[in-house]
Amino acid sequence: MKSIAQYSARTAYDPQCFVDVDLPDPIPGDFDLLVEIEAVSVNPADARVRMRKTDDGHPKILGYDAAGRVRAVGSAVKGFSPGDLVWYAGDLDRAGTNAELHLVDHRIAAHRPGSLSASEAASLPLTLLTAWELLIDKMGLKPDQPRHHESILIINGAGGTGSMMIQIARLVPGLTVIATASRPETKSWCENMGAHHVLDHRADMAAQLDQLGIETVDQIVLLAAPDKHFPTAAGIVAPFGAIGCIVPFDNPPDMNLLMGKSASFHWEFMFARPRLGGEKSARQGEILTTATDLVQSGRLRSTLARTLSPLSSETVRTAHELIESGQTIGKIAITKNLINQENKND
Amino acid sequence: MKSIAQYSARTAYDPQCFVDVDLPDPIPGDFDLLVEIEAVSVNPADARVRMRKTDDGHPKILGYDAAGRVRAVGSAVKGFSPGDLVWYAGDLDRAGTNAELHLVDHRIAAHRPGSLSASEAASLPLTLLTAWELLIDKMGLKPDQPRHHESILIINGAGGTGSMMIQIARLVPGLTVIATASRPETKSWCENMGAHHVLDHRADMAAQLDQLGIETVDQIVLLAAPDKHFPTAAGIVAPFGAIGCIVPFDNPPDMNLLMGKSASFHWEFMFARPRLGGEKSARQGEILTTATDLVQSGRLRSTLARTLSPLSSETVRTAHELIESGQTIGKIAITKNLINQENKND
Repeated sequence: MKSIAQYSARTAYDPQCFVDVDLPDPIPGDFDLLVEIEAVSVNPADARVRMRKTDDGHPKILGYDAAGRVRAVGSAVKGFSPGDLVWYAGDLDRAGTNAELHLVDHRIAAHRPGSLSASEAASLPLTLLTAWELLIDKMGLKPDQPRHHESILIINGAGGTGSMMIQIARLVPGLTVIATASRPETKSWCENMGAHHVLDHRADMAAQLDQLGIETVDQIVLLAAPDKHFPTAAGIVAPFGAIGCIVPFDNPPDMNLLMGKSASFHWEFMFARPRLGGEKSARQGEILTTATDLVQSGRLRSTLARTLSPLSSETVRTAHELIESGQTIGKIAITKNLINQENKND
Repeated sequence: MKSIAQYSARTAYDPQCFVDVDLPDPIPGDFDLLVEIEAVSVNPADARVRMRKTDDGHPKILGYDAAGRVRAVGSAVKGFSPGDLVWYAGDLDRAGTNAELHLVDHRIAAHRPGSLSASEAASLPLTLLTAWELLIDKMGLKPDQPRHHESILIINGAGGTGSMMIQIARLVPGLTVIATASRPETKSWCENMGAHHVLDHRADMAAQLDQLGIETVDQIVLLAAPDKHFPTAAGIVAPFGAIGCIVPFDNPPDMNLLMGKSASFHWEFMFARPRLGGEKSARQGEILTTATDLVQSGRLRSTLARTLSPLSSETVRTAHELIESGQTIGKIAITKNLINQENKND
């Protein structure tokens, strides 16, 4: 099968960052789906994994988010048949989705919404699972369960995960959803995703909240630059509130800032659950199934902002370069076929 | 009223650390109980507050835990009458309980269990609320709701809070309760409080867990020396597990150690809730009422280890000195009257 591989940790500006290789077709294990990849999307996590590649002579296939079609199923697979359209966010410990064919444990995959194109669908799983696991499973928000006089602050709302978090937070009636952005186009994007208010995270956020008549925020999520934003977040989080974070700190944060408020801090690392394996990983299949329903009923929508094609070493490199610019809005997907052919293939 | 006051931040070895003073009797506000103090207990928090006293010429009364009898009630008080026996953990922002009379908002107080003496009762509220707010309200354990193949590790189980945490964790059927201690007498104390296993926190805890056939622990609480124990806790906490902490760090902890496990960190600061005031503080009254029932039915018991009397500048100073030795087991209470008179007064 055609695959996009890397052999060493190279900058995304290096034309040799990725190479097109031909590898043997993978054979599904008992619990696996063998999936024909139709579209993938690229996440900041892909870029972080790329830079950890050791120069051991073996090719590594990156790519986690995917939309595809089931070609074959393992002997223990339940609920999926060849021909089914699926989506999933993958597993850090297996070969990635930047390839013609891909193996995924069926318990972390789900039937994807037919109302989305392959590239629209591929844009969602990883950020959707990250947002859902943090806001719903850890921070305790529940769709359709009202919150009164409560608010959430999503720092860096225009990125892929921020865009999903705004939408998921808006599933909670009464919750005031505040996002941050720093440019006119990212501010508009956040409003378009459903944010009630958008702050500028380059200016004094406490002062901007004050102007909105909001003294403290119940839940705060740090999606970028946590070292910079943690002290601010600690200052504005409400007593008994929580701060969530999805990216590592460069330096240890002063956790004592949260003590007097009896506050909590939650990490969210999407790949922690697939790593558990078996039934413990199946929560991701459940979340994606719920999300499919929410997309079909129009309550969640794709955060796709830009599509590249075809799926090749050059488009993957370009996507990594864009991601690392820190200027992207929403998600970047790469389709196997040319964009104008995509609808015909769906 | 006779009161034990401090005027400046002095070491507990200084005979002038506390002084006996006579202050005007306090007058209850609308929501207050005026309480005749029968016994108090001393907590590490008292010692930390003592060292923060500024030398402003004004007397400060420490003491938070108390068992007493209601003498008068404010106009808005519901559920309490003069003569009622009460217990509570107090409010950092008001005068303390080391006095003949004390004011407390009735919403953070409760009727105390009649099965305990005043000193046994005074030993519980602060540590009980700390343990309950962390294990039940934050970490999600529930009495009588079974947990399977789950465990909790209570680092420093023989202290006042550790002793309550062991007992509260044992209210959860199926949960394996592991405490730590470092001396034969503290190990016995933890076993006596209900710990299934007791580790030595001065030796390799991961290796000791390994010998018990336990690879990871779901919930870990740091009750002392968090800088020393945090890296160990991060290593042995289970994926999606949580670390709770009740004492400040000397240096910022390396929170990234928890990221790959998608784990959580919870602060517990008992005085955060009284500070919220009004109905938001009433959760503490609820918890203490539940605890009274649990004590009456024999499911929770006092952690009192030593009683001093009478309540004076000298006994308060001695209690602070003992607390600061770091060698205490369970709780130290001080009764207003001589110990052998206590039962007659109850």
